[in-house]
Amino acid sequence: MINTLIEKIKKTNAPIVVGLDPMMNYIPEHIQKKAFAEYGETLKGAAEAIWQYNKGIVDAVYDLIPAVKPQIAMYEQFGLPGVEAFQKTVDYCKEKGLVVIGDIKRGDIGSTSEAYAVGHLGKAMVGSQALYGFNEDFVTVNPYLGSDGVKPFIKVCKEEKKGIFVLVKTSNPSSGEFQDRVVDGKPLYELVGEKVAEWGSECMGDSYSYVGAVVGATYPEQGKILRKVMPKTFILVPGYGAQGGKGADLVHFFNEDGLGAIINSSRGIIAAYKQEKYAKFGSESYADASRAAVLDMREDIAQALASR
Amino acid sequence: MINTLIEKIKKTNAPIVVGLDPMMNYIPEHIQKKAFAEYGETLKGAAEAIWQYNKGIVDAVYDLIPAVKPQIAMYEQFGLPGVEAFQKTVDYCKEKGLVVIGDIKRGDIGSTSEAYAVGHLGKAMVGSQALYGFNEDFVTVNPYLGSDGVKPFIKVCKEEKKGIFVLVKTSNPSSGEFQDRVVDGKPLYELVGEKVAEWGSECMGDSYSYVGAVVGATYPEQGKILRKVMPKTFILVPGYGAQGGKGADLVHFFNEDGLGAIINSSRGIIAAYKQEKYAKFGSESYADASRAAVLDMREDIAQALASR
Repeated sequence: MINTLIEKIKKTNAPIVVGLDPMMNYIPEHIQKKAFAEYGETLKGAAEAIWQYNKGIVDAVYDLIPAVKPQIAMYEQFGLPGVEAFQKTVDYCKEKGLVVIGDIKRGDIGSTSEAYAVGHLGKAMVGSQALYGFNEDFVTVNPYLGSDGVKPFIKVCKEEKKGIFVLVKTSNPSSGEFQDRVVDGKPLYELVGEKVAEWGSECMGDSYSYVGAVVGATYPEQGKILRKVMPKTFILVPGYGAQGGKGADLVHFFNEDGLGAIINSSRGIIAAYKQEKYAKFGSESYADASRAAVLDMREDIAQALASR
Repeated sequence: MINTLIEKIKKTNAPIVVGLDPMMNYIPEHIQKKAFAEYGETLKGAAEAIWQYNKGIVDAVYDLIPAVKPQIAMYEQFGLPGVEAFQKTVDYCKEKGLVVIGDIKRGDIGSTSEAYAVGHLGKAMVGSQALYGFNEDFVTVNPYLGSDGVKPFIKVCKEEKKGIFVLVKTSNPSSGEFQDRVVDGKPLYELVGEKVAEWGSECMGDSYSYVGAVVGATYPEQGKILRKVMPKTFILVPGYGAQGGKGADLVHFFNEDGLGAIINSSRGIIAAYKQEKYAKFGSESYADASRAAVLDMREDIAQALASR
């Protein structure tokens, strides 16, 4: 799947992933109204609104991008109907030919991590049947529990030719609280990065590993270091746009081959119509605003890479 | 909710939580057969089997214990129908008067952590309605992302009078890979423990905080240290029984008041009928074996506490 992702990045010339992280206050009123008219102001109504909103965006941008990253928290907040909307979104994006990165940040121990891996990437055995659950292409994984928590994911990745992105240095302001603490002269995130490179060496695609890393756009200096620590690791970079990252901050996340990183933008794309820059589209044409924002982001990154 | 949990522990004289972590190979054949006859060898069939299995156990032990801890990974492995079985299990256990600890090990940043908190503990706004999602009483939280990731949970805990257990030192063999690394002369888990105590001081129940910690039974020495670092923190202790922890290892997790810890057993209780000790019950009476195992566990812990 890492090979597929890279192919699609080359084809679209866009190392971009759109974060499908729907919040109720992003969703245009006409969509909310319609969903509530059908299902009431219920969890089902919210789930329907999320799904229609996502579908509009995906239809408007799928030809421009290689991948999407639905953040499952935004679906879980609406309970079971929300999780149903997550599944629908995953399925629809795959139909549209997109690589789906489930941003689930799971991580547990042994058989429990295996259950997450099976449910999100692999197949569960039910009697004599092997059945897919959520069936994303990649998922994000939290490393706090160590190798026991990560290796069951890698096992399933090998079987399914799928991949993971392990949290190394996250984009949030307090990410340093534990991740930057110095151990044997090195920050913890660097140790985690070394482990990611080690885990990744066990399952290589053509040029990059199935085991990727998450490093926030908001920490370009750390990105520079981690790029060297993990040369064969694809880096998923959140924090572009709304969280403050710019194209110029991102060049060090890429390798000389122009690959090795994929930049996520969520709010900046899916709620673009709320920005002054794209306000002309209006809320009815929110998806066209998203398309314009993807084109601008592609240009911003291409320019930054060209002028490095 | 921490007050409620403590009351129930006193009433049952059992600082015990039963981990409802159903694996297909734990589920007696008669339950699987019936579920598959109704729904086929499908995810729905698996979910039905899990739910019936859980119900049998809960009916057999609910009067002996204060709380249950369903591990959501074991449900997610069966996709959406599995998550539906999780919700049914949560709802049923609450009906039976049990405190429900959702073992979800979530953790993300800012608004995303808030979405998890809202979905699992609090209420989501849908139009003018505030609606509960999964509605557990407690959840487990991963601290790798720092305060940004934990505080949104605490905010919802304050509103809802619910609680969290933050991963500090996990029970698995490789938990030391990152958690034991020494920072400024102290292992990382101790720094996380200090943070848990700090976060917890913001929202106290009568004698313990709404913010608890997870520390594995398999690390009694670390438990002893952490007990002192976090004196007002309730510690959720996994790893009893099948993972190797014994009653005698657990005494240091408790405070002088005989409180401050709640011990989880999953496989040791729910699959007790598979152990030689309880084989006489047979698979048809698997739930009676679970009841006997709870009684033995209660006795083991009481004896260990009495003889310290």
